[in-house]
Amino acid sequence: MPDRRFYSPAGPLTLRALAAVSGAEIGAGDPAAVFTDVSPLDTAVSTDISFLDNRKYRESFAASEAGACLVAPGLASLAPAGMALLVTAEPYRGYAKVARAYYPDREPEPVQTGASLIHESVTIGDGTQVDPGAVIGPRAEIGRRCRIGANAVIGTGVAVGDDTAIGPQAVLAYCIIGRRVIVHPGVCIGQDGFGFALGSDGHEKIPQLGRVLVGDDVEIGANSTIDRGSGPDTVIGAGSKIDNLVQIGHNVQVGRNCVIVAQSGISGSSEIGDFVIIGGQAGITGHLTIGAGAKIAGQSGVMRDVSPGATMGGSPAQSGRDWMRGVALLQSLVKKRKGA
Amino acid sequence: MPDRRFYSPAGPLTLRALAAVSGAEIGAGDPAAVFTDVSPLDTAVSTDISFLDNRKYRESFAASEAGACLVAPGLASLAPAGMALLVTAEPYRGYAKVARAYYPDREPEPVQTGASLIHESVTIGDGTQVDPGAVIGPRAEIGRRCRIGANAVIGTGVAVGDDTAIGPQAVLAYCIIGRRVIVHPGVCIGQDGFGFALGSDGHEKIPQLGRVLVGDDVEIGANSTIDRGSGPDTVIGAGSKIDNLVQIGHNVQVGRNCVIVAQSGISGSSEIGDFVIIGGQAGITGHLTIGAGAKIAGQSGVMRDVSPGATMGGSPAQSGRDWMRGVALLQSLVKKRKGA
Amino acid sequence: MPDRRFYSPAGPLTLRALAAVSGAEIGAGDPAAVFTDVSPLDTAVSTDISFLDNRKYRESFAASEAGACLVAPGLASLAPAGMALLVTAEPYRGYAKVARAYYPDREPEPVQTGASLIHESVTIGDGTQVDPGAVIGPRAEIGRRCRIGANAVIGTGVAVGDDTAIGPQAVLAYCIIGRRVIVHPGVCIGQDGFGFALGSDGHEKIPQLGRVLVGDDVEIGANSTIDRGSGPDTVIGAGSKIDNLVQIGHNVQVGRNCVIVAQSGISGSSEIGDFVIIGGQAGITGHLTIGAGAKIAGQSGVMRDVSPGATMGGSPAQSGRDWMRGVALLQSLVKKRKGA
Repeated sequence: MPDRRFYSPAGPLTLRALAAVSGAEIGAGDPAAVFTDVSPLDTAVSTDISFLDNRKYRESFAASEAGACLVAPGLASLAPAGMALLVTAEPYRGYAKVARAYYPDREPEPVQTGASLIHESVTIGDGTQVDPGAVIGPRAEIGRRCRIGANAVIGTGVAVGDDTAIGPQAVLAYCIIGRRVIVHPGVCIGQDGFGFALGSDGHEKIPQLGRVLVGDDVEIGANSTIDRGSGPDTVIGAGSKIDNLVQIGHNVQVGRNCVIVAQSGISGSSEIGDFVIIGGQAGITGHLTIGAGAKIAGQSGVMRDVSPGATMGGSPAQSGRDWMRGVALLQSLVKKRKGA
Repeated sequence: MPDRRFYSPAGPLTLRALAAVSGAEIGAGDPAAVFTDVSPLDTAVSTDISFLDNRKYRESFAASEAGACLVAPGLASLAPAGMALLVTAEPYRGYAKVARAYYPDREPEPVQTGASLIHESVTIGDGTQVDPGAVIGPRAEIGRRCRIGANAVIGTGVAVGDDTAIGPQAVLAYCIIGRRVIVHPGVCIGQDGFGFALGSDGHEKIPQLGRVLVGDDVEIGANSTIDRGSGPDTVIGAGSKIDNLVQIGHNVQVGRNCVIVAQSGISGSSEIGDFVIIGGQAGITGHLTIGAGAKIAGQSGVMRDVSPGATMGGSPAQSGRDWMRGVALLQSLVKKRKGA
Repeated sequence: MPDRRFYSPAGPLTLRALAAVSGAEIGAGDPAAVFTDVSPLDTAVSTDISFLDNRKYRESFAASEAGACLVAPGLASLAPAGMALLVTAEPYRGYAKVARAYYPDREPEPVQTGASLIHESVTIGDGTQVDPGAVIGPRAEIGRRCRIGANAVIGTGVAVGDDTAIGPQAVLAYCIIGRRVIVHPGVCIGQDGFGFALGSDGHEKIPQLGRVLVGDDVEIGANSTIDRGSGPDTVIGAGSKIDNLVQIGHNVQVGRNCVIVAQSGISGSSEIGDFVIIGGQAGITGHLTIGAGAKIAGQSGVMRDVSPGATMGGSPAQSGRDWMRGVALLQSLVKKRKGA
C-alpha cells in the first residue's frame, strides 16, 4: 500500500470498472467486487489489484495474496485459487491505466500561487536553519540542527532526520531522509522513476507509488538523481557515499557503506550489497544482485549478477582478472601483427 | 531567421563592415550591400550571411540562396552566381564574430534586480498553478492546467502547452514546450550549445540562435540537459521519453516515441528516427543518422550511421551480433591461453 | 593554509589533543606543542599538522616543513628531523578527525531564516543585474557588468569577476571566478570533494578545505559539477570550455584552453595540460598527468599518464592507433570465424 504520507488512492473501484479502465476481460471473479489499491505481487493483500507481466515472477504470482491481478492469457492458469483475474495481452499497460485510475496525476494538496515559501503545516526542529529562498511543502517534517540550503525545495510530506544538511537547489520529494545525511547541491530525490509500458502507438506511463528511503550517514553528491520506487521503495543504506552525477533507478536497493563514484548508474530494481564499491561511469543494468563487498571497476557494464567480494571490469563486465587478460591478449595480438 | 520571440538582430550591416568584423577579405560582391541576419546555408535567404566550413556541405553551399557567405579560399569557386563572398582561412571563426555582431551577448530585455518573480507581461492559462519561488520572464506564455514547480525558472518568451508539468528547479529558455509534457526537477532546456571555433590562441564562441522544440507527451528526466540549436532548432519528437542525466546536443533531432535511458548522450546535429531505443550511458557522436526503430545497447559508442531497425552494441558500436561475437571470441582466446 | 575568506580554524590544538582526537600515538615531539592548522605535506609550515598515507609521497614527507605529521609505523623513520609524529595504522582516517577538529562541519556565519536574499555585506559592481530569486551570501563580491541568473545561489565569500554570467539555478561556493566566464544553468561549483578514509566500520569524511579557481573566459556547461579542493585548490585554466554534465573531482588542475565534452569526468588530483581535448563520456582516473595538446577520444578510460600531443582511445585507453588496430583485429577474427 503506497505510503499515505504521500499518496491517497481515489478508489475503491469494482472489478468491472477496472476491466473497463484497463481494456482487459474478466477471466475470474465477481464483476461487482471492489478493490481499493494497487500493489506489487509480493506485498499485495486481498483488497489490492496487482499485475504479472514477466514470466520470471510467476512464482510470486502463484503465492500472491492479491485479490485481483492483470495477467496475460498464457499465464492465467497459474493463478492461486480465488484470485480475480483481468486477462489482457498487455498486463503492464493495463496496470498503468489501473494505477492511474487510483492515483491521478495531480497531487491532492497543491500549494497555491503566491503562497509563502514554507507551508504553515511544516514542522521544523530546534536549531535548524532554513536559508533564503528554500521552499518547504505541506506536512514536511524537518529534524533538529538541520540546514536547508538556499532555494532548496522540499516536497509535501517529506521527512528529514536530525543533523542533516540539504544543499542549495536540491529537490526532495516522496522521501524519508535519515540523520546526519549530506545531500549536496542540485540533487534530485524522489521524482518519478522511468517506467513505461512500451507500445507501438506510444508509451504508457506507469504511476510511481513508492518512496525513497535514505539511511543515516549517507552522502549524496551534487546533481545526482535518485528516482522513487514504482511500488516498492528505492533504498540507500546507512553510511553509503554517493558521488556527483550518479543515477539511481527506481526500486534499487543500495546496501550499507557502499561507495558509488561519479557518473555511475544503477538501473531499476537492482540490489547492491553492503560495502560494494562502484567505480566512476560504471553501469549496472536492471534486476541484478551485486554481492556484498564486490568491486566494480570504472566504466564497467555489469549485465549479470555479481558474487560477493568479486572484482569486475569491462563492458560487458567479467572478472577483473579475465578483463585484464583480454585487454593484454588483444594488445599482444596487435603487436604481433604489427611486427609481422 | 532566428525566432523573433527570442532574438532581435542588431543589424543591418554592410558587406564592408562584415569583412572588418570577421577579418575576411571581400572575394565577391558590393562592399556597400547590406545584410540583415545570419542563417545556415540551407535556410538562408538573400538578405542573410551564412558560412561554409566543412567540405561535406559544399552542395548546400552551391544551392544556397544566402546573399553572402564566409568561405575558405579553396572552396570559394563553388559559390552560386551572385553570392557575395567573404574569404578567410577560418570561416567558422569569422562566422562566430559576424553572428556576435548581429546578436550581442546580452539579452535585450533583462529583468531587473528586485523585480517580481512573475513578469507582468506573462500570460498564464486557467487552472495553472505556479508554486512558490518560480520565476517567469517577460512575454512567456503558460498554457492551461499546467503546474510550474517551486523555484523553476522560465525564461523570456518561452511557451508551455496545456497540461504540462515543469518540475522544481527546472530551467527553460529559448524553447517551445508541447502539451502534456513532463519536465522533471533540475532539467535545463535551451542553454547555449557547445559551439566554438577552436583556435590556437583560444576558442571563439559561436552564438547559438536556435530554439528547443519539445513535442506533446514528451517526458524529460531529472537533471537532463538539452541545448538549443545553433541556428536550426533542437527537436524532441512527440511521445519520446528521456530519462535522467541525459545530454542532448544542439541541433539534435529526436524522432517520435523514442526511449532514451539515463546518462546517455547525443552529440550535436545527429538525427534519431522514431521509436529508437538508446540504452543507458550510450553515446552517439555528432552528425549521424540513426534509423527508425534502431536499438542501441547501453554504453555503446555509436560513430557511424545506423540502419533502421538495427541493433547495435559496443564502443565503437557494431551490430549487436558482431559485438557479442567479438566479446565471446576474446573470452574464448583468454580461456585457451589460460589452459595452455 | 585554507583561505580565510572561506574557512576559519578552531585551533590551536596541542599535540596531545591531536593524538587523542585521531587515536594515534605520539611517536616524536613535545605533547604540549601547539599546532594551528592542517595542510598538505608540500605546503605545510611549522605550525601545521599534515599526513602521509601513500608511500608514493614519501619524498614530499622527507622534505616537508610541517611541524607535525600523521604517519604509519613503517614510514615514520623517513621523517625529517624535528617533525612531531603521530603514529597510527590509519593516518588518513586520523587526518580526517584532526581536520574536522580544526574545521567543524557548520559554516561559521550562516545566513538566517527569513533573511533577505542578498546579504547586506555583499558588494556588487556597476552594471551588474541580479535576476529575481537569486541568493547571495555574506561577503560575496560580484564584479561589474555581471549577470546573476534567476534563483542562482552564491555562497559566503565567493568572488565573481567582471562581465561574468552565472546561469539560473547555478550554485557557487568556496570559489573565485574570473572575468568573462559563462556558468550555465544548474552548475554546481565548490561543494565538498568525494573524500573519505574508507573503513570496515564505515567511511570517515575528510574535510575539504580548498577552493575552486576558475580562470578568465572559461565556459562551464549546464548541470556540470566541480568539487572544491581538499586542501590544494581545484583549478580550471583560462579559456577552457567545459560542456554539460561534466564532473571535475577535487584538486584537479585543468590547463588553459582545454575542451572537455559532455558527460566526461576527471577524477581527483589529475593534471590536464593546456589545449587538451577530452571527448564525450571519457573518464580520467585520479592522480594522472595528461600532457598538453593530448586528445582523448570519447568514452575512453584513461588509467595512465598521457604524453603531450598523444591521441588516446579505448577503455583502458591506449594510443588511438593501437586502439583502432585492436578493434579492427577483433572484427577480422570474428569475420574469419564466421566464414569458417
